[in-house]
Amino acid sequence: MELALLYSGGKDSSLAALILDSFYDVTLVTAHFGLTEDFEHGKAAADALGFPFDMVELDRDVAEEAVERMLEDGYPRNGIQRVHEHALEVVAERDVEAIADGSRRDDRVPTVSRATAQSLEDRHEIDYLAPLSGFGRHAVDRLVEQELDVETGPSEEISRADYEGELRELIRSNHGEEAIKTVFPDHDQTIVRGRA
Amino acid sequence: MELALLYSGGKDSSLAALILDSFYDVTLVTAHFGLTEDFEHGKAAADALGFPFDMVELDRDVAEEAVERMLEDGYPRNGIQRVHEHALEVVAERDVEAIADGSRRDDRVPTVSRATAQSLEDRHEIDYLAPLSGFGRHAVDRLVEQELDVETGPSEEISRADYEGELRELIRSNHGEEAIKTVFPDHDQTIVRGRA
Repeated sequence: MELALLYSGGKDSSLAALILDSFYDVTLVTAHFGLTEDFEHGKAAADALGFPFDMVELDRDVAEEAVERMLEDGYPRNGIQRVHEHALEVVAERDVEAIADGSRRDDRVPTVSRATAQSLEDRHEIDYLAPLSGFGRHAVDRLVEQELDVETGPSEEISRADYEGELRELIRSNHGEEAIKTVFPDHDQTIVRGRA
Repeated sequence: MELALLYSGGKDSSLAALILDSFYDVTLVTAHFGLTEDFEHGKAAADALGFPFDMVELDRDVAEEAVERMLEDGYPRNGIQRVHEHALEVVAERDVEAIADGSRRDDRVPTVSRATAQSLEDRHEIDYLAPLSGFGRHAVDRLVEQELDVETGPSEEISRADYEGELRELIRSNHGEEAIKTVFPDHDQTIVRGRA
């Protein structure tokens, strides 16, 4: 069965790929707005893990909306959620039996409710899987340590193929460098370099 | 990492075992009240799948309470939920890094909320995993067809090592055969005979 997994090159979506790999023909798919070359980090991680890789292009208007929302809120949660829901809709258009993402039990964002999942499945006639949604943070950390070689650092230094890099770039170009700090707190990111 | 998976011999807990098998040293554990020999069906399915098997004994008082609740309600949901929560507490006492069950995204019962999961983890210093909680009914059915050899039939004829068999037996002995029908609707069960 063909499955497309929304992929950032980070530890969560990489671990989701390893879990699904025994049961599906998994392709790692990075969704991007065409604003940066960050998708390259998704491709590099996918290559390092030995999975097929592809990209889908998202609607630039959704990025603009998300950024305005984030600046208004003063935090990124609702904007990221909006982009993730859009990305799932785009990936669900692919010719696959199932789509998946790396969302975890303890994530605050993005979250996919049971109702949203069912709606995606019914409208697109696909299965939506969140293989990490039954795993807490501690269990994920243990599995990542066992299975993956990761590099961790501040989010300005570690580039991933997630939405954050492109949304930061869009805030910078529309509102200037300082505006980024009003939305994104300092935090660490991880990028996957290969298997442990 | 050692993991104990609450196991009934049915398709959900069997599929959960296959998912976890790549990452943990999985032991399939059937919880029982000592009221019937139904645990034998769990052992047979575990043997057929090639997993180590063990049993834990539950508190008979919990079965009595659950049965009274079910008769009062006229449906099994709350009684089954009570037994499942007790079973998780008992399995969490084992000397393992993680425990798991076969609960699915679309299950009405048993359900384990994020708060219950976190509480189990904190009090017992273990990880609690629900590997199927990110899979809907359709995805589970497809994976079962791909991975497992199952037998399906009416619940009076297909014996599993789940709580239902023992709770039916307890209702029969306390309240007579007819009382069973006031609690359990007619429905099909599946038991796993091996891998596909």
